[in-house]
Amino acid sequence: MSEKHIPTKIYLSEDEICRKWYNVRGAMKEKHDPFLNPATLKPCTFEDLRPVFCDDLIEQELNQTDEWIDIPEGIIDAYKMFRPSPLIRAYSLEKELGTPAHIYYKFEGNNTSGSHKLNSAIAQVYYAKKQGLTSLTTETGAGQWGTALSMACAFYGMDLTVYMVKVSSQQKPYRREVMKTYGANVVASPSDTTNVGKKILAEFPETGGSLGCAISEAIETAVTTPNCRYVLGSVLDHVVLHQSIIGLETQVAMKKYDIEPDIIIGCAGGGSNLGGLISPFMGDRIKGKNNIHFIAVEPASCPSMTRGKYVYDFGDTGKTTPLIRMYTLGSGFMPSPNHAGGLRYHGMSPIISKLYHDGYIEARSAEQTSVFAAASTFAKVEGILPAPESSHAIKVAIDEALKCKETGENKTILFGLTGTGYFDMAAYMAYNNGTMSDYIPTDEDLQVGFNSLLDVPQNK
Amino acid sequence: MSEKHIPTKIYLSEDEICRKWYNVRGAMKEKHDPFLNPATLKPCTFEDLRPVFCDDLIEQELNQTDEWIDIPEGIIDAYKMFRPSPLIRAYSLEKELGTPAHIYYKFEGNNTSGSHKLNSAIAQVYYAKKQGLTSLTTETGAGQWGTALSMACAFYGMDLTVYMVKVSSQQKPYRREVMKTYGANVVASPSDTTNVGKKILAEFPETGGSLGCAISEAIETAVTTPNCRYVLGSVLDHVVLHQSIIGLETQVAMKKYDIEPDIIIGCAGGGSNLGGLISPFMGDRIKGKNNIHFIAVEPASCPSMTRGKYVYDFGDTGKTTPLIRMYTLGSGFMPSPNHAGGLRYHGMSPIISKLYHDGYIEARSAEQTSVFAAASTFAKVEGILPAPESSHAIKVAIDEALKCKETGENKTILFGLTGTGYFDMAAYMAYNNGTMSDYIPTDEDLQVGFNSLLDVPQNK
Repeated sequence: MSEKHIPTKIYLSEDEICRKWYNVRGAMKEKHDPFLNPATLKPCTFEDLRPVFCDDLIEQELNQTDEWIDIPEGIIDAYKMFRPSPLIRAYSLEKELGTPAHIYYKFEGNNTSGSHKLNSAIAQVYYAKKQGLTSLTTETGAGQWGTALSMACAFYGMDLTVYMVKVSSQQKPYRREVMKTYGANVVASPSDTTNVGKKILAEFPETGGSLGCAISEAIETAVTTPNCRYVLGSVLDHVVLHQSIIGLETQVAMKKYDIEPDIIIGCAGGGSNLGGLISPFMGDRIKGKNNIHFIAVEPASCPSMTRGKYVYDFGDTGKTTPLIRMYTLGSGFMPSPNHAGGLRYHGMSPIISKLYHDGYIEARSAEQTSVFAAASTFAKVEGILPAPESSHAIKVAIDEALKCKETGENKTILFGLTGTGYFDMAAYMAYNNGTMSDYIPTDEDLQVGFNSLLDVPQNK
Repeated sequence: MSEKHIPTKIYLSEDEICRKWYNVRGAMKEKHDPFLNPATLKPCTFEDLRPVFCDDLIEQELNQTDEWIDIPEGIIDAYKMFRPSPLIRAYSLEKELGTPAHIYYKFEGNNTSGSHKLNSAIAQVYYAKKQGLTSLTTETGAGQWGTALSMACAFYGMDLTVYMVKVSSQQKPYRREVMKTYGANVVASPSDTTNVGKKILAEFPETGGSLGCAISEAIETAVTTPNCRYVLGSVLDHVVLHQSIIGLETQVAMKKYDIEPDIIIGCAGGGSNLGGLISPFMGDRIKGKNNIHFIAVEPASCPSMTRGKYVYDFGDTGKTTPLIRMYTLGSGFMPSPNHAGGLRYHGMSPIISKLYHDGYIEARSAEQTSVFAAASTFAKVEGILPAPESSHAIKVAIDEALKCKETGENKTILFGLTGTGYFDMAAYMAYNNGTMSDYIPTDEDLQVGFNSLLDVPQNK
């Protein structure tokens, strides 16, 4: 093995931006179960999805066979704003922990959206523009996806309406303002701009809204507005495909320095970041070319993999999406409001769910105070203030590095640092003040969510 | 001239991090006037400054002759967290403006402090640690300097007390929380931890504090605590020296691609960013090696160069510092509270002041609504949400690029993008809502500040 000096930050050159995405489904021996049309319980067709989604994205969504998908030049141009992103050797963290392990992280937070979401936002807006659409709709909770999509729409010149959960819009006015600065029309949901919004407002005039309601409003507007479609930032297969750029760049950078990861760790909410990071490594793993240990980290307060069921479920609480077979807590599961940041989704990417079900991925859950402790340690020595979501991966990376300290193994640990925490300081404040608490749902709490699975036609 | 393809982002490799800072005073034919001890009106000596500042920094402060100063390895190690920073070709902005000009910007905001301040914070904490000091004090208003210093103290393991103007601490609790996450002790000023603070609180119990008061508290704590010193983030010559890394990296990157700037633009508050960006180019200019047009941009609401006087003045409103000959509005000048962000300092770096006085720099002022208009245009096409301070430079870069569009000249324009605006969204909100107003001080307003110059012993 060669002994090249490894810099703290490995930046690929612009020429090295990947020209193809990697579709891990092409390598999977068993594909995940198809999306089902909830009315017919038959697999969704291109035509079923066409009123809601843009054509090229549906093709990508339904493509379970091609391993490589070309990235159009128009997308590469936008990727140049913030890609390639750095692969960072955590020399300072290793020293702080006193571990013989080598720790690396792929940092996706160095763009204004503050996260990896921009990778898919750019692709989705590009294809919408190519199809001749004139506007898009989406929903946002914490605001990262809405920000990423606003940026992409500003870049390509596309109108955008973001339905932002009303309570988030009030609690995070600055996130809303970032989206407005990028030209988005931000509507607090529920609103009087849709029938579903008006109906909810009539019934519950004081409601703070929910992500389920915001999704329903965004879809209603998309299907009732000419040349308009709805876009989604996680869970779906085409999003994981776009996010594969994270793993591909990591693989190129590692090969340059003869680095081979023993462990790859990612946080998992909807699964798009984890899926993107591991995709090319997983393809090789399935082909027997490596023996990497993949770890998905989810919050103990929303444990879809570690305590959920692998069944068909709706993707939204409004029960309007196609049925997806995935690990789920049930669309009726209510995540604890005291939980900081994202990763509160009841389900999980069907790709990640299938890989987990087939034993390719280990899943762990982490409690939030331990996650913020890891985040603080990391920030002090590595300089980057991580997002609460990303910090779940940091927590487990530190755990694994400390195991190496005990055993004396110099394993190579790679994790995904999906974003920065600049808009999450209220959560850091709670941690710093000692007022943050942990929450682990009881079996009774989970049962409420599981009961909602009985409303899924497939499960009857 | 060779026609190399120029990438959107030029990243130097870690090996190319500069090993020396550039001290532009070494090249200046006439040095700026010396700092004066206000008690004796004689030039400040090493011993005069020793109770307040750390030894190595005083040596750098008083060194008007050496052009090159070695950067210690311990500082390079910390610089690797976030340097080299990218030099970016603004292809998208050029296209948006339809200009034949080539626009470049050096982006210093890709670190958690969100600005260039970290360059000097790291150096100052390193030297304090080397001297065996155990704690530092400083003041912060908007919070960028306090954040940068907190990060540097966390990296080197040094205690830090930040006196944060009380009203800022209340208005920007999240900034405060970032500092606390990095381990700083953040005290709202005025406080009961100092005599000066107690005195002010006794007299004005309801005061929201001021930067002048916070400086006085920080200095009192530094001189009365064993092994403690005070540090400052702008204005002083050693800060400009540390910031020269910005210009040096830019020069290396430009030489690699045979790029020669015709115009260099920087925003100017205390002058450290502008001084750092232009230092090596100015050294060459003084030696007749280039004919670059340097432009300093200040807010019309705080026009220290364009409407101030070149006289001796105190550096702080508390009138406790040595006397500095500089362009100043008088330490009694009150900047309009409606002005967004930084650049509200009454004076200007003595290096920048002297270069401006000697005709090497042009100064322009800009009104804030036009600055935010430029910021919004920039954000939409370049993807980066700029700090209000940095946006002053963007405004003038766009003006110059549009002049080129009229004349058909393809000038090369370089500007410094000092930071990101994530913690300035209240100002963006005012701009987006149309509630932001401009403020240009009347001659009577300026007279209030000029009257305070009569309290300066040297001017009597």
